[in-house]
Amino acid sequence: MKTVVIGSGSWGTALAQVLADNKEKVIIYGIEKSEIDDINLNHENSKYFEGVELNPNLKATDDITVVKDADIVLLAVPTFAIEGICLQIDPYLKNNIIVVNVSKGFHPETSERMSEVIRRCISKEHLSSVVSLIGPSHAEEVVIRLLTTIDAVSLKEEDAQVIQRTFSNNYLRIYTGDDEIGSELGVAIKNVMAIASGILSGLGYQDNTRAALITRGLQEMIRYGVFFGGKQQTFMGLTGIGDLIVTCTSIHSRNFEAGYQIGKENDVTNFLKYNKKTVEGVRTAKIVHKVAKENNIDMPICEEVYQILFEGKEPKTCANDLMLRELKKEF
Amino acid sequence: MKTVVIGSGSWGTALAQVLADNKEKVIIYGIEKSEIDDINLNHENSKYFEGVELNPNLKATDDITVVKDADIVLLAVPTFAIEGICLQIDPYLKNNIIVVNVSKGFHPETSERMSEVIRRCISKEHLSSVVSLIGPSHAEEVVIRLLTTIDAVSLKEEDAQVIQRTFSNNYLRIYTGDDEIGSELGVAIKNVMAIASGILSGLGYQDNTRAALITRGLQEMIRYGVFFGGKQQTFMGLTGIGDLIVTCTSIHSRNFEAGYQIGKENDVTNFLKYNKKTVEGVRTAKIVHKVAKENNIDMPICEEVYQILFEGKEPKTCANDLMLRELKKEF
Repeated sequence: MKTVVIGSGSWGTALAQVLADNKEKVIIYGIEKSEIDDINLNHENSKYFEGVELNPNLKATDDITVVKDADIVLLAVPTFAIEGICLQIDPYLKNNIIVVNVSKGFHPETSERMSEVIRRCISKEHLSSVVSLIGPSHAEEVVIRLLTTIDAVSLKEEDAQVIQRTFSNNYLRIYTGDDEIGSELGVAIKNVMAIASGILSGLGYQDNTRAALITRGLQEMIRYGVFFGGKQQTFMGLTGIGDLIVTCTSIHSRNFEAGYQIGKENDVTNFLKYNKKTVEGVRTAKIVHKVAKENNIDMPICEEVYQILFEGKEPKTCANDLMLRELKKEF
Repeated sequence: MKTVVIGSGSWGTALAQVLADNKEKVIIYGIEKSEIDDINLNHENSKYFEGVELNPNLKATDDITVVKDADIVLLAVPTFAIEGICLQIDPYLKNNIIVVNVSKGFHPETSERMSEVIRRCISKEHLSSVVSLIGPSHAEEVVIRLLTTIDAVSLKEEDAQVIQRTFSNNYLRIYTGDDEIGSELGVAIKNVMAIASGILSGLGYQDNTRAALITRGLQEMIRYGVFFGGKQQTFMGLTGIGDLIVTCTSIHSRNFEAGYQIGKENDVTNFLKYNKKTVEGVRTAKIVHKVAKENNIDMPICEEVYQILFEGKEPKTCANDLMLRELKKEF
């Protein structure tokens, strides 16, 4: 089996190294010449992982036709780039390959989940199935081989098992799952909660408040996910509460970091003006706001984040508004 | 309504201050003369909250007969002291009062939950019901009035609502619940997970590993709780995942701190020899081990913590043993 990892960013590099460690055939495709050279010549990807020596067998290329003999293609690009890259690689693909998705969010115009985008853009005969390889996993930790667990989620169980066997080793433990809807909605919406968590920290709130946010946030994720056909149980697993925790509590999370700045300044203006990084939760907040409204799903935390990001509402006011809702039963 | 808070420690003081802030009648009973004087004379409890000025209306006493005109008695003492204090106060109590439990764990000999101990030790006519006031709440944050949410859980709904109304304000938001079993088992067992989380941090693991632990640990808590009649849903709330998160990720947690030392030294010896603090999770690990074995409940993480604490197993080996279990489906 040969795997091509599309994207020489942090997560693409870390997952490609997992395969190199497992002595699997793997190569990274990227468009940044400097990153490719860094991997091939220095065994580093110093833009993302300063001082980390990569597995010396890990190679990279900027030749997209490398996908032509791939059995597995792993897409490690931001959500907005998934459609374009699928259309670009499709003509070169063999029949019946596995496409692995690791992105967390929605198509910016159609609001489709990532698996849906991939199935729409890759020819039927080329695609055995989509496997989403998602869960609580900062690339910065996987690349230095710290114990990590994630899910391989697919509508086709044997493909999930192929990915499970190919990627698992003594520092990466993979479970399989079949609830594509629940898993993909969980990992997407949790980015909005991570922004909220960062905002609270920036405002000076601590652990109790964050635990409240995560617990109530989980309820919102379940409400949204179950509405669209996801299973409640999935939200108690790695792609639900697991990914939610790691993103809401970690300095490695860009979503948390964005929220932190907004909370600290009690204002969104500077973030919107100067941020250059991909913060998936911002796009996701917009889509969740729209879809929740259309379908009448109660999402009070996501709504406050939307109000802060797009309507200029003051973060401090939002926290108080959430706190002072009517006293009620928890369930 | 008059409330007597038994125990002048950190949580007793913080909750009594909530009532003082709410202009409710409240007094703290304690046995440490220095703490009582500190509260009455300096409006501080500097042993626990250095530099924090308490509400000046908060008073304390060392006269146990103060409970005789209480409508609510809140027990803020360690689990091992609950039975003794109940037997001590019972002769003085009026009929039909609410006893509020805030302890998290089991009776050390009988393995009863806290509500069960209280119902056994307080005369029937004195007791309207037990309300467990539990959830993700470090006293250090409540005392400085940071947003916090907890549950008031009781078999008698109107008593839960009385406690909800009496304690809620603009920084403490209380939800009611009726799943006493699920809630009390959740907050008890999470202390074992917090020790495990501390051990992993002490060994050098980071966010991914902790998220894995919390996610898998939640499954164990559910398995145990549902076996004894708790509701699965409860574990997705404040007394389940909420309290689990706050204890597994916080520097304020004694259970986490204990685990951290054990992980750092990769050995339990010094902790057992020199620790003087109440670390509820240690006692709880022993009881969960015993009860799970008797009832054939699969609790792999709790079992590894038990092995480390009581059988001298090496922490590093435990982490690897958990990681290298057979590859499987998540659910």
